[in-house]
Amino acid sequence: MFFASDNAGPAHPSVMDALVKANEGYAMGYGADPIMDEVRESIREIFEAPDAAVYLVINGTSANSILLGTMSQPWQTIFCSDCAHIHEDECNAPEFYTGAKLTLVRTVDGKMSAADLKTKILAEENRGVHGPQRGPLSITQVTEKGTIYQLDELRALTATAREFGIKTHLDGARFANALMALDCTPAEMTWKAGIDTVSFGGTKNGAVGVEACVIFDPDLAWEFELRRKRGGHLLSKHRYLSAQMQAYLKDGLWLDMARAANARCAQLAEGLAGHNGARMLYPSEANIIFFEMPRSEHKRMLDGGAVYYVMNGDPETGDPDEPLTGRLVTDWSASEEAVSQFLSLLRG
Amino acid sequence: MFFASDNAGPAHPSVMDALVKANEGYAMGYGADPIMDEVRESIREIFEAPDAAVYLVINGTSANSILLGTMSQPWQTIFCSDCAHIHEDECNAPEFYTGAKLTLVRTVDGKMSAADLKTKILAEENRGVHGPQRGPLSITQVTEKGTIYQLDELRALTATAREFGIKTHLDGARFANALMALDCTPAEMTWKAGIDTVSFGGTKNGAVGVEACVIFDPDLAWEFELRRKRGGHLLSKHRYLSAQMQAYLKDGLWLDMARAANARCAQLAEGLAGHNGARMLYPSEANIIFFEMPRSEHKRMLDGGAVYYVMNGDPETGDPDEPLTGRLVTDWSASEEAVSQFLSLLRG
Amino acid sequence: MFFASDNAGPAHPSVMDALVKANEGYAMGYGADPIMDEVRESIREIFEAPDAAVYLVINGTSANSILLGTMSQPWQTIFCSDCAHIHEDECNAPEFYTGAKLTLVRTVDGKMSAADLKTKILAEENRGVHGPQRGPLSITQVTEKGTIYQLDELRALTATAREFGIKTHLDGARFANALMALDCTPAEMTWKAGIDTVSFGGTKNGAVGVEACVIFDPDLAWEFELRRKRGGHLLSKHRYLSAQMQAYLKDGLWLDMARAANARCAQLAEGLAGHNGARMLYPSEANIIFFEMPRSEHKRMLDGGAVYYVMNGDPETGDPDEPLTGRLVTDWSASEEAVSQFLSLLRG
Amino acid sequence: MFFASDNAGPAHPSVMDALVKANEGYAMGYGADPIMDEVRESIREIFEAPDAAVYLVINGTSANSILLGTMSQPWQTIFCSDCAHIHEDECNAPEFYTGAKLTLVRTVDGKMSAADLKTKILAEENRGVHGPQRGPLSITQVTEKGTIYQLDELRALTATAREFGIKTHLDGARFANALMALDCTPAEMTWKAGIDTVSFGGTKNGAVGVEACVIFDPDLAWEFELRRKRGGHLLSKHRYLSAQMQAYLKDGLWLDMARAANARCAQLAEGLAGHNGARMLYPSEANIIFFEMPRSEHKRMLDGGAVYYVMNGDPETGDPDEPLTGRLVTDWSASEEAVSQFLSLLRG
Repeated sequence: MFFASDNAGPAHPSVMDALVKANEGYAMGYGADPIMDEVRESIREIFEAPDAAVYLVINGTSANSILLGTMSQPWQTIFCSDCAHIHEDECNAPEFYTGAKLTLVRTVDGKMSAADLKTKILAEENRGVHGPQRGPLSITQVTEKGTIYQLDELRALTATAREFGIKTHLDGARFANALMALDCTPAEMTWKAGIDTVSFGGTKNGAVGVEACVIFDPDLAWEFELRRKRGGHLLSKHRYLSAQMQAYLKDGLWLDMARAANARCAQLAEGLAGHNGARMLYPSEANIIFFEMPRSEHKRMLDGGAVYYVMNGDPETGDPDEPLTGRLVTDWSASEEAVSQFLSLLRG
Repeated sequence: MFFASDNAGPAHPSVMDALVKANEGYAMGYGADPIMDEVRESIREIFEAPDAAVYLVINGTSANSILLGTMSQPWQTIFCSDCAHIHEDECNAPEFYTGAKLTLVRTVDGKMSAADLKTKILAEENRGVHGPQRGPLSITQVTEKGTIYQLDELRALTATAREFGIKTHLDGARFANALMALDCTPAEMTWKAGIDTVSFGGTKNGAVGVEACVIFDPDLAWEFELRRKRGGHLLSKHRYLSAQMQAYLKDGLWLDMARAANARCAQLAEGLAGHNGARMLYPSEANIIFFEMPRSEHKRMLDGGAVYYVMNGDPETGDPDEPLTGRLVTDWSASEEAVSQFLSLLRG
Repeated sequence: MFFASDNAGPAHPSVMDALVKANEGYAMGYGADPIMDEVRESIREIFEAPDAAVYLVINGTSANSILLGTMSQPWQTIFCSDCAHIHEDECNAPEFYTGAKLTLVRTVDGKMSAADLKTKILAEENRGVHGPQRGPLSITQVTEKGTIYQLDELRALTATAREFGIKTHLDGARFANALMALDCTPAEMTWKAGIDTVSFGGTKNGAVGVEACVIFDPDLAWEFELRRKRGGHLLSKHRYLSAQMQAYLKDGLWLDMARAANARCAQLAEGLAGHNGARMLYPSEANIIFFEMPRSEHKRMLDGGAVYYVMNGDPETGDPDEPLTGRLVTDWSASEEAVSQFLSLLRG
Repeated sequence: MFFASDNAGPAHPSVMDALVKANEGYAMGYGADPIMDEVRESIREIFEAPDAAVYLVINGTSANSILLGTMSQPWQTIFCSDCAHIHEDECNAPEFYTGAKLTLVRTVDGKMSAADLKTKILAEENRGVHGPQRGPLSITQVTEKGTIYQLDELRALTATAREFGIKTHLDGARFANALMALDCTPAEMTWKAGIDTVSFGGTKNGAVGVEACVIFDPDLAWEFELRRKRGGHLLSKHRYLSAQMQAYLKDGLWLDMARAANARCAQLAEGLAGHNGARMLYPSEANIIFFEMPRSEHKRMLDGGAVYYVMNGDPETGDPDEPLTGRLVTDWSASEEAVSQFLSLLRG
């Protein structure tokens, strides 16, 4: 009954096998390993983007920060949601790598609307050299609240950005989960929807620690490489990043894992929705659930062995009837048994 | 006959086994995994430093940059050798993480002398607020030229620094190789010799990609953690760093691997020294050799299957008698066979 | 009828005289001129702060940025109002000098409340190393909307900050105007109210271009000096900054000028309040007025020779009845005649 | 007998008159004042560069740093002399504004040679993404040692840079003194010699505090403006910068002042050259002299009322025969009487 984080689960055995297999003999470092050549081609095919620049880094913070650094200038402001990971959970890494600031767009169910984005963009226009200049837009898909931008919502956001000459980054730490939810192609969810660069997550979906940075305009490639190196994010023994991504993509493993995670989450959501006293805070559209429940109920679940975060209060102490927010996240390895056990426990 | 780089060799099978073993079930992320608790204790024991703060990162550039960032201020200058990795090979990462500049101290055989260091320190003293202020000293051990600072040389450098209130960082990307060469304890080569922080390398010596940052003054710990996060270098699935380091340290594996690498290097050095036409450029004291040989001889070796870098010219084209510099590096996996084969080929 | 900005008016003749008088013979540069010694003592007396560190810079952006840099760390967030000059009008200079980000506290009439500040501070507490850490608070007095924090409001804000170990900066670009409005002492409006550092403005109140940075904790002095130099803000011919400030402070000239500016503004406000069709947007408590009036009325005033900014639309084109926002600012040199002329024109 | 610094002298009375004259009524701020329009046109004419972008800042450190920031990227290294002001005397401001590092080229008599520059440029070419990339070249004219690059020397340096696609900045803190020494046009000493941007100094040559930044490629103009603002170097009451520069340029005042300064310096140099016991360290070609003399002689001069810096030792204490280095700098206001008095005192 571990639903605390998709960062805390194991890597898929195929990923580990690939690591072990890659560990033979010598290989050129710093991305010049032959596996990377394969990975680059696979990602270009998957995205139907034969010219895309493709790089690997160790985690989402570095993927987001280096991509945004490559897309922005230090006198700009980056538009993002008011609950964006780049704003809340990266300890100023985006500011460090870009020199820019962030302009927060309000969200409903974790999602920005094109209209709200436009209001914020317009607000940055009237002060000439005095105010921060308009920089890129960053969209998180799956959102931090577990919701999904529909394709037309994505297109509306990027179209609004494009009106003002603004490029768009997609923080796809849970890219695969979103793709499964939308049942569309990677191209449809990215460049066909107006996205310019993608943090293509692997870590939360069964890898050891790897994210691909996909840049549809290859003119930015060399600057990205320099920024990655300057941030200390170019690995010498790069083959171990390549091998993870190779296994991740092979035979659709990444999609299977996301499908499984989403399915487990849907089961949990269904059970919670029917539970007296629990209330879903946002539509659960991928592999994350935020729900409200009385403290006493949370305590009962945690005491019973469920593992998840209670976000806004101590489940042990305080008014037993006070509603507290819980967060459940499923990863590829969450079992049907764990889900059933959780739901049984919930029903009491 | 692969002697191009200790970055290009495989990880030790025990390290891979540890990775696979760590890949079971759920584990708290971001350094809160139980394996890290073990690793921290092991490193404290190894360094006889029960209070030391210990962190893991993915590579040497980030270890050096974050440690130096923690030790310096953006209006300072960092003293280092004129061939230091932090100066030559990190694409301004140290400047990015510190905001400071570097003051280069000249080297003989890759090593700074205390007298030259003092001259440079004194040169930064006369300009009050106008000039950069004195920041930390960074020493590389094994040096970039494959030589070793003797303990008294280290102590002389740190004593000179300390005269001016300057703290010292050790870039120990090849820490184990140095230790084997000096046949001393980690404490003797670090805090007993006046070192304040250490980049304790694993990557070049049989790991997949892990370096420990050891900080003897635990008051700096929290700042280090914030700087690591802000640089995007805190891993979510941290257990895979911990597991590598755990295996690396277990039963002295790290020392065995360094011993092997140094022994192979010594054999190569002995063979080269006896070879007509080859000339050692620096004493080879660990696992690196720089040597000069006519272009035609390099070409003969490379054509014969030896793999190594020729640093200052194209071995294929030009005056066959012109002397060119070759670099050989051995890692733990270099075999006696490869060495014999190389030396046979050399003898012709 | 020039009410566009207090940045656009002339310097007081006494300031110019002081500049000319200072221009005799040689004087040590970089702040070592004897006039600076006088200025430092005057400011310490005025603030009843015998140990305060006192420095001069050329403008408000640099005063704010260097002070905030001295008070914060690059992994922190600085709390300020959602209409703060440091957020809106300094093109990321605060971010450049601090490396930090800004957390915006909502305002009513340009002012933050202690309760809203507390909410924002608390929101930054739950994410450990992942989120930005709590940095200093910056308060603008006179606010950007022309209102004034009462002393108890200031004290409530700084007390809230202090609960969390947070220091407070006062952006006093219009310090003198605020002081006249509150009829209190500089000490009461600053350190007695819990303020730690002050940007003490001169430029908008009759100087050529000078602001004092007042730091009540002298331990921060040397870091401030280094940050000022590194930002290129230490003037070689510093005597010309000193002389301005000397004349500004002499015989209460600074207070006289602020008193005059506030008085002219009060007359304008009174006239506007009585004008059919005009509406004050905020209480005008110092030397700034924001008011709403139909487009046709703005057009009539501007055509009649009044000079001021219309903030949110073109007064020339559009629905004549649409209400637009105008901003009037008075400086020391605004004449009673100009005010009368403006009000006559308004009455039609 | 004040020869300590050209930063310590007064501004020319015409400059002060212009300041006073500019102090009438209202003027648009931030560079939109009408005097700036005149100044811009004057500088374009003086440089025969009708398209040049022209901006004013308060001092040389900001001029150099913002120009270099506009010309470089944070992963580059800037080539400059080993005694450059940007390296030695700006407390990391160039690093702060650029993010780049500096590569020092050795000097003879304060001047780099094209051959030495080429060696350093070539040394930065072999490490791909690992090493810093080649950024701009910065040349100081008059050099920090008081010598002058001849036009062919300038052309040789910029041609070498241009071979590698490198742009060149001229630190002309003493631009006028150099021009008088070379007896050439501003165009000949800059863009006709391959210079791309110029810090055109006023402060050391009779202004209160103003330098023009001249950028021959107007495509860089907007970025410069944003960088200036972000550094806090855009003045609100900009007219006082404009007025200084207007007076400085009017009727060749700037050239007259430099001519006077150089002439006084030449007289000092001639006298020193004939003095038993004094030795010129570099050819004195503009308004600076470095000379060596026994400590006892320095002491005698200083006791007699001469004011200048002794660079490398205390003139009061130590072996009276030990040679110490003195530096004399003349500005526009140095009188013939002061020079005669100095030389009489020297002769004893």
